[in-house]
Amino acid sequence: MKDAIGVVPGLAVILVGSRKDSQTYVRNKKKACEAVGIKSYEVNLPEDSSEDEVLKHIATFNSDPSVHGILVQLPLPHHMNDENILNAVSIEKDVDGFHPLNIGRLAMQGRDPFFVPCTPKGCMELLHRYGVEIKGKRAVVIGRSNIVGMPAALLLQKANATVSIVHSNTKKPEEITRQADIVIAAVGVANLVRGSWIKPGAAIIDVGINPVDDPESPRGYRLVGDVCYEEASKIAGLITPVPGGVGPMTIAMLLSNTLESAKRIHKFK
Amino acid sequence: MKDAIGVVPGLAVILVGSRKDSQTYVRNKKKACEAVGIKSYEVNLPEDSSEDEVLKHIATFNSDPSVHGILVQLPLPHHMNDENILNAVSIEKDVDGFHPLNIGRLAMQGRDPFFVPCTPKGCMELLHRYGVEIKGKRAVVIGRSNIVGMPAALLLQKANATVSIVHSNTKKPEEITRQADIVIAAVGVANLVRGSWIKPGAAIIDVGINPVDDPESPRGYRLVGDVCYEEASKIAGLITPVPGGVGPMTIAMLLSNTLESAKRIHKFK
Repeated sequence: MKDAIGVVPGLAVILVGSRKDSQTYVRNKKKACEAVGIKSYEVNLPEDSSEDEVLKHIATFNSDPSVHGILVQLPLPHHMNDENILNAVSIEKDVDGFHPLNIGRLAMQGRDPFFVPCTPKGCMELLHRYGVEIKGKRAVVIGRSNIVGMPAALLLQKANATVSIVHSNTKKPEEITRQADIVIAAVGVANLVRGSWIKPGAAIIDVGINPVDDPESPRGYRLVGDVCYEEASKIAGLITPVPGGVGPMTIAMLLSNTLESAKRIHKFK
Repeated sequence: MKDAIGVVPGLAVILVGSRKDSQTYVRNKKKACEAVGIKSYEVNLPEDSSEDEVLKHIATFNSDPSVHGILVQLPLPHHMNDENILNAVSIEKDVDGFHPLNIGRLAMQGRDPFFVPCTPKGCMELLHRYGVEIKGKRAVVIGRSNIVGMPAALLLQKANATVSIVHSNTKKPEEITRQADIVIAAVGVANLVRGSWIKPGAAIIDVGINPVDDPESPRGYRLVGDVCYEEASKIAGLITPVPGGVGPMTIAMLLSNTLESAKRIHKFK
């Protein structure tokens, strides 16, 4: 693209506050941009910034033609209104795909979203790359968050799976999950999904990243998924590890969305 | 509202072409408006009208302060782009709730749609009025159309049911449906759901309205639902009849959405 039309895709990241995990995510995204030749722009604002300051930076990036994707790192400080801030990102540059207009288009038949949210897009890409048939299969999504569970369920449905959504009010979640050929677990509860929940041969995508105490680890904790890997890996046909499964896919899809945005804005095929 | 602030809610209906069923629906909506004191505005355009003519009428209603709801009767003639036309309706007056921004807000936790689409809203109202518990219950929606199945599934999920969506690619739909405490059938296939599909005591909402040949009827046909009423009514705890169940609720919810819109626009509580 650079050679053909002289355009370098650009991704702007806005980070408010100094949460360690958010800083790590932003650093990883920046590194990934560098690795593939996407120019990254970064704004770091102090925890006590006002909503207006964040909105001002979004407006600047919205009108900056060298920026094709804008990402506001979540969670935002409590005194800010997530909805106001996320809605301010231009729909053409909302590479996270969190805008309600985008989610609506994702839900509707015959419409396509501008961007597919990164983590669910990564889950689908994993299923495709590993040759997992989706059409006509039973799929269970555990968790219904706006950023993973809900859009993942919509994507599976668009791909013609028969989808059930399990959440905190579901009675006997293990019975429904056991019917699934495909499970996407995105609920944030360490080792919730046990071996007994899984249909033999099923494909399991584990989106959870939960810290559990581990005195033997130098950090005092280790990261585990929503799925008990030790048990599930003996029964599942395919299973993603935590860490290392879905996480890197999320970043890859962010880069893919940014490139897609640059191509669309510059009408480059 | 008229007495308190001198405002009469207004609903505008745009009908293109001369389909008999669409004319009947529009006439029924108009009658219902009159019965409750909503002022109705109607535009009838010939089948061969241009998209621009429809868009011009929408623009006029969008800026008319006496109109609080705008409804474009579907289906539109084939030469028109539904998406362009439905997107032109001001989101504040989209009483059908079909705008993708509205669907997105319906799908997301922590957001509320401007309007809940009329037929799914009617289904939920029936469940509430008849005291059907939804939270924690298994619900199956048969069909995933943009106007009924998909939004109905989103509403059931917002009400904390565990929702599965059955569609044309689903294998053994009867097995999943048999697990459901609540079934919403909206697929347009006469008598698809048999008695054997139903869990004893379940609540069944039948959205289908399908003509089947009937030489004994003066019109040569009669209307039946997606559910085989004769069989299902023996097993279900509650079941809506066709015609007469969901149909009148759809119109009632359209009136309710129009009133809600007028109240919101005029900040009337």
